[in-house]
Amino acid sequence: MGKTLKLGLFGFGCVGQGLYHVLHETRGIKAEIKKICVKHPEKKRALPDSFFTYDKDIILHDPEIDVVVELIDDADAAFQIVKAALQNGKHVVTANKKMLAENLEEIYHLQQQYNRSVLYEGAVCGSIPIIRNLEEYYDNDLITEVSGIFNGSTNYILTKLFDEKKNYACALAEAQQLGFAESDPSLDVQGFDPKFKLAIVLAHAFGVFVKPDDIVNFGIDRISASDLAYAQQHNLTIKLVARAFKTGNTIHGLVAPQFVEARSPLRHIYNEYNAVQVRGAFSEKQLFVGKGAGGYPTGSAVLSDISALRYGYRYEYRKLQQHTGTVYSNDITVQARVRFPADQVIPLHHFLELQSGYAGARDQYLIGRVHIDTLKAWSTDTATGLILAPEPDFAPARSIAKPDGLLVA
Amino acid sequence: MGKTLKLGLFGFGCVGQGLYHVLHETRGIKAEIKKICVKHPEKKRALPDSFFTYDKDIILHDPEIDVVVELIDDADAAFQIVKAALQNGKHVVTANKKMLAENLEEIYHLQQQYNRSVLYEGAVCGSIPIIRNLEEYYDNDLITEVSGIFNGSTNYILTKLFDEKKNYACALAEAQQLGFAESDPSLDVQGFDPKFKLAIVLAHAFGVFVKPDDIVNFGIDRISASDLAYAQQHNLTIKLVARAFKTGNTIHGLVAPQFVEARSPLRHIYNEYNAVQVRGAFSEKQLFVGKGAGGYPTGSAVLSDISALRYGYRYEYRKLQQHTGTVYSNDITVQARVRFPADQVIPLHHFLELQSGYAGARDQYLIGRVHIDTLKAWSTDTATGLILAPEPDFAPARSIAKPDGLLVA
Repeated sequence: MGKTLKLGLFGFGCVGQGLYHVLHETRGIKAEIKKICVKHPEKKRALPDSFFTYDKDIILHDPEIDVVVELIDDADAAFQIVKAALQNGKHVVTANKKMLAENLEEIYHLQQQYNRSVLYEGAVCGSIPIIRNLEEYYDNDLITEVSGIFNGSTNYILTKLFDEKKNYACALAEAQQLGFAESDPSLDVQGFDPKFKLAIVLAHAFGVFVKPDDIVNFGIDRISASDLAYAQQHNLTIKLVARAFKTGNTIHGLVAPQFVEARSPLRHIYNEYNAVQVRGAFSEKQLFVGKGAGGYPTGSAVLSDISALRYGYRYEYRKLQQHTGTVYSNDITVQARVRFPADQVIPLHHFLELQSGYAGARDQYLIGRVHIDTLKAWSTDTATGLILAPEPDFAPARSIAKPDGLLVA
Repeated sequence: MGKTLKLGLFGFGCVGQGLYHVLHETRGIKAEIKKICVKHPEKKRALPDSFFTYDKDIILHDPEIDVVVELIDDADAAFQIVKAALQNGKHVVTANKKMLAENLEEIYHLQQQYNRSVLYEGAVCGSIPIIRNLEEYYDNDLITEVSGIFNGSTNYILTKLFDEKKNYACALAEAQQLGFAESDPSLDVQGFDPKFKLAIVLAHAFGVFVKPDDIVNFGIDRISASDLAYAQQHNLTIKLVARAFKTGNTIHGLVAPQFVEARSPLRHIYNEYNAVQVRGAFSEKQLFVGKGAGGYPTGSAVLSDISALRYGYRYEYRKLQQHTGTVYSNDITVQARVRFPADQVIPLHHFLELQSGYAGARDQYLIGRVHIDTLKAWSTDTATGLILAPEPDFAPARSIAKPDGLLVA
């Protein structure tokens, strides 16, 4: 089975340490960490000093090192490391979703140019092997949708809110303490982290490269007590749902909180677990569930990528090659429940269809159909809250319906 | 991407027709059906006569045919076809779990001998890519358990019993009408079909070849009205659970009905859906859910195997090669609720621990720990009913505890 792979690590945080332990407790894989590049010489480390370096070139220019494992926080620095590693003839394994999402098209071309492989299963939904499955298994299927819970820390927070009746601040603090949250929690709670993952999924599911800026994300940080009460009254819960889907020849993407019914498989995904649903024309609904956060699950995914490199594995990006004029677009509408402050004049012209409305002492609510561009505008307006309908019923944009004779309770 | 694969099909039932349609509605794969061998010349077919032959050698000796797709019912005839196909230099794709389970070790050696590939994702849990995932993705992980709902028709029946309050005979008839049940329904309801799948999973998860006869199976055909009532009182449901697991260096397998709690992920697997849970030391719990029965989901899995052959894919059976003295054993005990007729003297000596008991007008019940060998003996005694505890708490066999001072309500 050939020689032992020599690894050069960048970063030795939660995932790096998880990888180290997983590697040392399995016997199936011949790989060993030769060097670890870290930033802070002053930090106390769990391994002997000889493992560590503070100079990235020690790893990048070591001809013995076959694989660079990139596990640092900073996306720009990470991309420079990935580029340099490929240029120096090394394969790369990375779990950096932001770096990947922002540079995926270039990384695709760099792999071709230098004939080296970049694998990143650990970047998307922790231990769930979704990229590998999209690559390997769904290449002959007509995929219509890939959606689900792509972020462990927000799902942890939502579980605490709904199933344990804790408040938001307390739940967030717990998630951070357990190491589930990103170092900057706004990446999680505002839906950026699942958006980065969604950009990666879009390439492997539908063969389109989409910049994260072109995908709309709405966070969970504005869920109010009355949203919780509404959900409870209607036997619903709220999940942060990332979704890539197809209408005709057009691909769409969106990250937003959504009401979820009791019978939905997403209802029963608790704590730091993630879930990915794949809808295909023939295999119909597939669901993958696994831990989406934490050093061990992600370390295990990273190690699987390292193991795959021993067999010469590389992503084929087959959907790109089967590409037949599909385009990415945000020209789509969706049903949602929108919350405005009581004293605000409701921008009715943004509603393409109105279903119902309610005005309370502090807030007013409208349930209706809105354009994704409107949703994007509201996402930066902290006064406005929004949660998608249980079956959000996406539909291409059309002329604005007249919202006459409606409201107000 | 090379030439078009030419396929020779054996059988044109539900899965074969599903495959034909899936193949004709996808553009990603270059493969075409050249010939279909069927048994009954008198049957009306959906395709032109020129597609069909009644002589297996027309396919087996056609040098143009690269892949034999074996989709017939008869396991012995299927094995002869697989052997002949390999001997004639053809790769094989099959969905015949009984044939595979009974001959897996020989099929493993035949693949090596003739340097050809036999793929069979469609044989295990329909559209769920579990074999490929165990092969490719879990080879560096320490798997401790693979379990779940491996049979679509019994899960359909149990869903109708529990969620729609239908009776058993009516639910079985419906499953047959929908094409979910095997031609001989006792294969499903007595747990043989999931046992065949479990034998295949055992090889890919733990690297052991186990004959189906060495795996104990207990069916769902003896679930009584009082079992249903007991489940309802305790907010439980019943699922037919197949389970391969490890204690120390020993591997075990069992198929038996089991009580399932409301929060269990298996609780929410309805109708013909299957679910596979994989527990690993580092990735922890993974769950895969998808349709386990029906022509399209299985046809889609078969087509994925055909697609993989274009890339030279073969199962590596890596766990066999990592083999380090693990053995298969039935020397294990489990907690269960056992039902005996009211007039029977309860064989108390079979209970290693007793938890509780109840005697009614028609039946008596004991909840306690029994050896798998006892469970096997009861499986052929139609008077005895058995359902595993929600957390069955498997434990190595030990000396019999004295069941003194217990019973009867």
